Amino acid sequence: MNSVTEKETERAGYGLVEAQSYTFAEPPNEFRLASQETLGPITLVYETYGRINSDGSNVILVEHALSGDAHVAGRHDPSDPKPGWWDMMVGPGKALDTDKYFVICANCIGGCSGSTGPASINPATGREYGLDFPVITIADMVEAERYLLDHLGIQQVLCVIGGSMGGMKALHWAVSYPDRVRLAVPIATTSRLSAQGIAFNEVGRQAIFADPAWNGGQYYGKENPSSGLAIARMIGHITYLSENTMHRKFGRKRVENGEDANGPDFEVESYLRYQGDKFVRRFDANSYLYITKAMDYFDMTQPSGSLTRELAGVKAKFLVISFSSDWLFPTYQSKEIVKALRQNGAHVTFAEIQTDYGHDAFLLESRQLSSLITNFLTYAVE
Amino acid sequence: MNSVTEKETERAGYGLVEAQSYTFAEPPNEFRLASQETLGPITLVYETYGRINSDGSNVILVEHALSGDAHVAGRHDPSDPKPGWWDMMVGPGKALDTDKYFVICANCIGGCSGSTGPASINPATGREYGLDFPVITIADMVEAERYLLDHLGIQQVLCVIGGSMGGMKALHWAVSYPDRVRLAVPIATTSRLSAQGIAFNEVGRQAIFADPAWNGGQYYGKENPSSGLAIARMIGHITYLSENTMHRKFGRKRVENGEDANGPDFEVESYLRYQGDKFVRRFDANSYLYITKAMDYFDMTQPSGSLTRELAGVKAKFLVISFSSDWLFPTYQSKEIVKALRQNGAHVTFAEIQTDYGHDAFLLESRQLSSLITNFLTYAVE
Repeated sequence: MNSVTEKETERAGYGLVEAQSYTFAEPPNEFRLASQETLGPITLVYETYGRINSDGSNVILVEHALSGDAHVAGRHDPSDPKPGWWDMMVGPGKALDTDKYFVICANCIGGCSGSTGPASINPATGREYGLDFPVITIADMVEAERYLLDHLGIQQVLCVIGGSMGGMKALHWAVSYPDRVRLAVPIATTSRLSAQGIAFNEVGRQAIFADPAWNGGQYYGKENPSSGLAIARMIGHITYLSENTMHRKFGRKRVENGEDANGPDFEVESYLRYQGDKFVRRFDANSYLYITKAMDYFDMTQPSGSLTRELAGVKAKFLVISFSSDWLFPTYQSKEIVKALRQNGAHVTFAEIQTDYGHDAFLLESRQLSSLITNFLTYAVE
Repeated sequence: MNSVTEKETERAGYGLVEAQSYTFAEPPNEFRLASQETLGPITLVYETYGRINSDGSNVILVEHALSGDAHVAGRHDPSDPKPGWWDMMVGPGKALDTDKYFVICANCIGGCSGSTGPASINPATGREYGLDFPVITIADMVEAERYLLDHLGIQQVLCVIGGSMGGMKALHWAVSYPDRVRLAVPIATTSRLSAQGIAFNEVGRQAIFADPAWNGGQYYGKENPSSGLAIARMIGHITYLSENTMHRKFGRKRVENGEDANGPDFEVESYLRYQGDKFVRRFDANSYLYITKAMDYFDMTQPSGSLTRELAGVKAKFLVISFSSDWLFPTYQSKEIVKALRQNGAHVTFAEIQTDYGHDAFLLESRQLSSLITNFLTYAVE
């Protein structure tokens, strides 16, 4: 293969990928949740990229964020307009190099992209769960993935990595299964959601509750609570961008108003409406309720109240990354994780990436983010 | 009067006050708005505190914020549970000392606390304006107050002062009527609303639009769009507090959930719901739409694009105050005003008050805020 062809391969990204699924916890062997309620059967939809090596030592588990799914990279069909949500990071020659590593990502339980969630059929009633779906936690999401890894015969992962809620799952993995995680990379995340984070989630939920179409969570087959979910998403998008990025991207630029008196005046309004409208076509409002609650409940300082104590059993080496302009998961929250790990004598690398892009930076092309991860994967494993 | 009695007077605050009103722009002499539309008649509800002196040189015009009204201090009735919104600042011996100054505050046009707004009767139809109310701007609010001052025979004010949107009005006064303003105190404000500020306002408006009770703005005499307005207010409250204040005030403290499965889990949720519920009992959703739009449109850099050029005619001396933890109207936005004033050779004092309270700090008891204002009022007038 000459170098021109190599470059073309790189540019083409991962190529085609197929979603897979695994169903477990069939009644009467249901899955016991952290709440002690049971759930089953559970289907996890997942995707894999690259090939597992002979000793199974090259597995990277990618954890998605609130609105993410199993489709990390590549396309399901050549005609797909866009590749998976972390395509810039996963593929041949990329930071999570699929020529070297076997990358797995599963849609979380409670989700709406194939895995069992509130829109799934409740075997007890033959209808969608809706609000009969049990409360789920980050611990439950991790535990369900543990079933998947067992099914795939993977005893230990080389690395678990994710941003935002994905970072919560990565952190939880390293705590729950210290012997099964060699490296952990929590990005733009926290050990416990802040009061402000809970507050933004709550307002989003209230917007969904207030939508008459939501109908107590029983809207499947009828009109979706699109306006409520769109408002929740708009709030989210404001928190994902830094004030400075909003200023540079939109400033006070006006839009042509057309005939609609309630139409947007400013480009930033138009952007938010577009993001809201786009989101409701792919996401389930009840999943939004359940997953934001899982984030609210996330608190790695519990039960002892001490993060240092709770992280005492961790064996993984860590790369903790924050972004300077991320005001939703500010750097000080990453530093709390770093401090607690160091107090336990853990091997921790910490980097705050200087960027204007705010929380969203973990989803954006970044040479610095890629090289930090590449180097960590290469050198942290002796 | 002995000193004990003096203290008691201070503690008692301003005492009783009555709302007054002034109606002008009766058809056919209607008020011409910045948009060139006309509006009339216009009623402004206002309150006054203290006594005007013989040469009328002791007038302080207080400008209220988005959700404020004319009731700045004291009580309408001895049984009122709370005094006016800036009682800590206005009264005998306070920063705006009613033993010395004659303080005026008017509810803005577009408002819903007595002044003409979308809930007022449209003389053309005999019904509430609703969305037939014309678009209003900060300039229009200031111009309406100019009519009130003319009516009261006040040619020049000693000082115009306000926080947040009140600061926008104070700034506009000093620009529109340089000869009628001796001192100006814009607090926690900006010369133009940021993209992020517009974004938060827009999500609040979308929540109101999405409430079926809103009904295109025609809900008077029927059910109010309370859930939409409550959501808008919740979003506002998150932006008024700093992340750190939220952490100290609520942290991750849980509430007793009671029987309601959709009830709040965390104290911060309970606080937001309370604030939302309280607000909808006193505020009109259409006023919220119009006033947030007026804030969005506010841009003192226009028409020239240069704030320095637009502030060139200002004659007032300025005290500009920001709060270190205010992320809705951050200090750099106050500094832009200060810089533009100084480039015009204006007399400007600037202070960033170190506080954790965020944007809300301008409404809270603060010895530093009081003494800055007291000193400025005393020494800035030769």
